[in-house]
Amino acid sequence: MQIIESILQMQEISNKWDRGKKIGFVPTMGYFHQGHLSLVAEANRQCDTTVVSIFVNPSQFGPNEDFTSYPRDLQRDLELLKKYRVDYVFHPSPQQIYPEPYRTWVNVEGLSSILCGASRPGHFRGVATIILKLTNLIKPNLMFMGEKDFQQVTVLKTMLKDLNCNTRIVSCPIVREDDGLAMSSRNIYLNPEQRKQALCLYQTIKESQTLYKQGLKDVSLLKNRAKEIIESSGGKIDYISFVDSNSLQEPTVADEDTRIMLAVYIGKTRLIDNALLKA
Amino acid sequence: MQIIESILQMQEISNKWDRGKKIGFVPTMGYFHQGHLSLVAEANRQCDTTVVSIFVNPSQFGPNEDFTSYPRDLQRDLELLKKYRVDYVFHPSPQQIYPEPYRTWVNVEGLSSILCGASRPGHFRGVATIILKLTNLIKPNLMFMGEKDFQQVTVLKTMLKDLNCNTRIVSCPIVREDDGLAMSSRNIYLNPEQRKQALCLYQTIKESQTLYKQGLKDVSLLKNRAKEIIESSGGKIDYISFVDSNSLQEPTVADEDTRIMLAVYIGKTRLIDNALLKA
Repeated sequence: MQIIESILQMQEISNKWDRGKKIGFVPTMGYFHQGHLSLVAEANRQCDTTVVSIFVNPSQFGPNEDFTSYPRDLQRDLELLKKYRVDYVFHPSPQQIYPEPYRTWVNVEGLSSILCGASRPGHFRGVATIILKLTNLIKPNLMFMGEKDFQQVTVLKTMLKDLNCNTRIVSCPIVREDDGLAMSSRNIYLNPEQRKQALCLYQTIKESQTLYKQGLKDVSLLKNRAKEIIESSGGKIDYISFVDSNSLQEPTVADEDTRIMLAVYIGKTRLIDNALLKA
Repeated sequence: MQIIESILQMQEISNKWDRGKKIGFVPTMGYFHQGHLSLVAEANRQCDTTVVSIFVNPSQFGPNEDFTSYPRDLQRDLELLKKYRVDYVFHPSPQQIYPEPYRTWVNVEGLSSILCGASRPGHFRGVATIILKLTNLIKPNLMFMGEKDFQQVTVLKTMLKDLNCNTRIVSCPIVREDDGLAMSSRNIYLNPEQRKQALCLYQTIKESQTLYKQGLKDVSLLKNRAKEIIESSGGKIDYISFVDSNSLQEPTVADEDTRIMLAVYIGKTRLIDNALLKA
């Protein structure tokens, strides 16, 4: 496992990738949980070479968001990666990634301004730009991303297709704690009481799936019930949306492609989760 | 010389480029003049393989601009290319380049909203996006562009550097008619009288260079004199600017990096030209 901190060195390596080999890339912001590690395992399964990047990307955080407090622990992350076949860990500095004056930004219109994009203006611009840069630096065949950030995966698939990039995204299932809470680096912000409250996201998903299975397809009724569960547990709703998995547009009647998308504040911590209604 | 109309076919070819060979790319909108052909000749000199693209890019034209009337003559262009060593001509359809729903755009902030960007909102967004797409499809080592579009070259050099692309731009000198008019596909819009008026751009450049050589460094005085020449010849000024060749910012006192930038309407035809003051 080679740790690379220089973008020049990364480019030298990726310019010489053996074309007969499949290169897998797992972009991360570090502070690994089983969700991240499941992506590394999947890259190992599908690819000959695995590259993991660890970079807390400043440009995807808003001015009042948690960039400085976002959890970081490089040594722990590297230790966790030892159980996998990771060929390269790319860990550049923000100064190398965004040298002054940095001017170029990628925007995926329509998909970036709804849901999480409505609450976090500029977030997906930052995500799209960093992923395009990392894709150019690493030149992977496959990129592995978790479905917890479902909108992110949709935005990035669209970007790679629109810009004629050679990289394809493999999206992998959400990994959950035993009680159902979706794993997230931000879960460490929760105190014990909030940790219990945080279950309301998964409860809402399960209840919505049950109602759908029982024949309830009216999106406004599904949304009312979801709202009740979140609010009765003390969560503050950022959004509850039922969307088409491809377009991210909200239908009035749910079908087998409809996905429940949730963003909820538990205390000051914003958590997201999502699932197909047709479980 | 192989003509390629399919982006899939172009990708298949570029995915197999021999890494020991230098790939040169000349992006054009066709309707060749000696300026274009000088770029092809330079690509031939510096590279092993030369790819020329011919694509009138709709996204860089404003709603009231000349996209539909922009001159096109593919057969004549292909005939002209026969005098050079052109391995591939890439000529995709707009539908292939911008399949519906197309959503992803690249913006080079700061540099895109001044000069031509101020008169043509969205122009450089369209230019940056198409060049990034073509770069991804063709994967050249070197891209050859004319300095007549000096701002475009600056925007694109910035984009390729910011996005960590492997392609480097080689900018080539402006090619002029015998009387000094910078070659442009849009020169065919000029009637004989306008063709004479159009010389005012070159005359302004020459006069500014002479004044600079004589010791006049005050940008506002240089600008006043340039304005007089254009207006007395019947041209309508879009902008006259004296800018630093790297930042495109206007200094108050000219130096050896200062460049005169002109955009002038001759009748309904908008012409641009530029040159270093230090000729």
